[in-house]
Amino acid sequence: MPDLLPRARSSQESVFAKMSRLAAQHGAVNLGQGFPSGSPPAFLLEAARRAIGTADQYAPPAGLSTLRGALGTDLGVDGDDVVVTTGATEAMGLLAQALYGPGDEVVMFDPVFDIYLPQARLAGATPVTVPLHLKEGEGWTLDLAELRAAVTPRTRALLLNSPHNPTGRVFSRAELEAIALLARQHDLWIISDEVYDELYFGQRPVNVRTLAPERTFTVGSAGKRLEVTGWRIGWVACPAGLSGKIAALRQIASFCAPTPFQVAVASALPVARETGFYEDLREGYAARLRLLAHGLRELGAQVHEPGGTYFLIARRPGWDAEALVVEAGVAVIPGSAFMAAQPAPEGLFRLAFCKSEAELKEALGRLERFTTGERRPLARHQP
Amino acid sequence: MPDLLPRARSSQESVFAKMSRLAAQHGAVNLGQGFPSGSPPAFLLEAARRAIGTADQYAPPAGLSTLRGALGTDLGVDGDDVVVTTGATEAMGLLAQALYGPGDEVVMFDPVFDIYLPQARLAGATPVTVPLHLKEGEGWTLDLAELRAAVTPRTRALLLNSPHNPTGRVFSRAELEAIALLARQHDLWIISDEVYDELYFGQRPVNVRTLAPERTFTVGSAGKRLEVTGWRIGWVACPAGLSGKIAALRQIASFCAPTPFQVAVASALPVARETGFYEDLREGYAARLRLLAHGLRELGAQVHEPGGTYFLIARRPGWDAEALVVEAGVAVIPGSAFMAAQPAPEGLFRLAFCKSEAELKEALGRLERFTTGERRPLARHQP
Ligand SMILES: Cc1ncc(COP(=O)(O)O)c(C=O)c1O
Ligand SMILES: Cc1ncc(COP(=O)(O)O)c(C=O)c1O
Repeated sequence: MPDLLPRARSSQESVFAKMSRLAAQHGAVNLGQGFPSGSPPAFLLEAARRAIGTADQYAPPAGLSTLRGALGTDLGVDGDDVVVTTGATEAMGLLAQALYGPGDEVVMFDPVFDIYLPQARLAGATPVTVPLHLKEGEGWTLDLAELRAAVTPRTRALLLNSPHNPTGRVFSRAELEAIALLARQHDLWIISDEVYDELYFGQRPVNVRTLAPERTFTVGSAGKRLEVTGWRIGWVACPAGLSGKIAALRQIASFCAPTPFQVAVASALPVARETGFYEDLREGYAARLRLLAHGLRELGAQVHEPGGTYFLIARRPGWDAEALVVEAGVAVIPGSAFMAAQPAPEGLFRLAFCKSEAELKEALGRLERFTTGERRPLARHQP
Repeated sequence: MPDLLPRARSSQESVFAKMSRLAAQHGAVNLGQGFPSGSPPAFLLEAARRAIGTADQYAPPAGLSTLRGALGTDLGVDGDDVVVTTGATEAMGLLAQALYGPGDEVVMFDPVFDIYLPQARLAGATPVTVPLHLKEGEGWTLDLAELRAAVTPRTRALLLNSPHNPTGRVFSRAELEAIALLARQHDLWIISDEVYDELYFGQRPVNVRTLAPERTFTVGSAGKRLEVTGWRIGWVACPAGLSGKIAALRQIASFCAPTPFQVAVASALPVARETGFYEDLREGYAARLRLLAHGLRELGAQVHEPGGTYFLIARRPGWDAEALVVEAGVAVIPGSAFMAAQPAPEGLFRLAFCKSEAELKEALGRLERFTTGERRPLARHQP
């Protein structure tokens, strides 16, 4: 048999898919993969049930005009500049194909959301990472001089993510202004992954598009905002005049995003805004963050509280992710999964708190029993 | 501003998207894009409504195990070899990335389903086309000697599509045996796009996988089979042992296919099989094919009846697709849209008959008035 291409041979199951698989196998509480365990909002579910049977055929590749319009209003951009994608994952992949290729470099931060690296490589480009340094008391700090030094004549784009997965870092206006200036000086694209734009605990994250509209692609996800990660509705707001080309690439990627869910999200976006859905979401998550952070500290872990996202980073030397899922019955993501070039500090983990209070308490209980050397109750081994 | 990459600059709106857009603008009956205008089956719609609110989060990238299992049973393959994709479009794109790249060639037939060409080019490979010759009385014929001559040391894969869009050609067992032999002699992959596998009017199409299981990827689409082109559930059945690598590529493309629709399709596949849904579908389409073919012949068109798909090719020199949509109020796809290297015979069109009888009759009436020089009724210009 002929071989697969190297780019396919080297591709691997992601750590998120793997930990979810292990969690299911071992009956573990899944604090690994970032999907909520609560119910999505009723106004969204009802809209989807109504759309089924009425909007079941192809949508235009760029997205239904109602959804593009609703996104335009929500994001404060022209709906014509928005392209609807099959989740933010696809949006990020399309931008990689459109903006960089062989011989090009794209600068991103380390730790890094794992898909950025293989997507850049699939596009033929070289990812260049700039470390965020984990400092006692300060959290994850960015050294702007290091960022500037990473830009070379081959650099085509800066890839940002704020709020940042996995660190929860929300980049400040001053940082984003410096980044926008750098992009302008070197004529670089900015790709801004803002899937957690409504999930923040302090100040509202600054949208870098407002600082460099002519060069910024803003990526978002209905999965993250409206708690339906399995519906696969994402988007990218493009600089003026570029949506047609991105839509054309998008149509050969997966033609269009699921039509009934486009209809549902179009109707839900203004409702979410008007009814204070996002405020409630943040409040709920802030409470669960406190619960998990407190519990982890009680177990001797050092916790780095996020400014946004539904993840926190904890450090507890001695714990090991594979052992935790099998022996403690709690799935978490090892910090090493996000480290591109810097070494992962020992015992560093990302934990998702987009789970129910009951699950968080159960997970903390299991971790406590694991830490104090108790065995897992046998019941958990049963299907 | 920096430029987009050449691969993004050269990408264009597809003729299907364009004709659907023009059809909507001009109030035309849309016999262009291949989506049904009837209702999807009730058992599928109900399953989807039930899944909404219960299965809304990420699925494993390879697909829900229930759906992979149901597809395995339906296709007569091991469910572990199946990868669920965001429509057949994505499956074809992933295979391009996995199987060929710079310096490689992929052989396909001309006329060609339009996405194969840009997908091959995006993967860095060169598409090489072999003409199907349109012969009076015989329809579209394949010259096996021409196919053999198209294979070079650079060829990595043969891309088949049976039933074939746009010609409706169903390749015979003898042809597929010759193709399988050729693939074995030159150690080539076979990519078999079988999205219309249940839409045939004569003999059941032969599945080339049965002739060369070790090298055949079979692509399918719930959109085509179950009449929900907007749900974006497709699949690829891989040669044994390769599904993991394809799933890994798939996870960086769009992570997973929409979970609620995976649940619904998993439950609907056996029901469709057991209740004779596909037989009814074929009967309904055969009747509509007769209606459209007869009506077109009455208008002086030469009609090439398909062995499968829900398209027919008609020739009517003097007609022009852009004029038809604007002036007659009927959208069709110009034959030139499918021609890669051979010249399009003048006045050649693809018409979709996956529309209601009423729409087909309305379209025929409009074409008759157009042909006899009557103006369109003004009502059609209103929104
Ligand atoms: C930073 C970031 N970007 C993108 C995604 C993918 O989002 P989607 O589910 O819409 O593809 C995720 C999902 O976890 C994420 O954390
Ligand atoms: C031959 C062929 N392959 C693939 C597709 C795409 O199928 P899907 O809608 O599942 O992406 C089509 C759609 O028209 C087609 O005709």
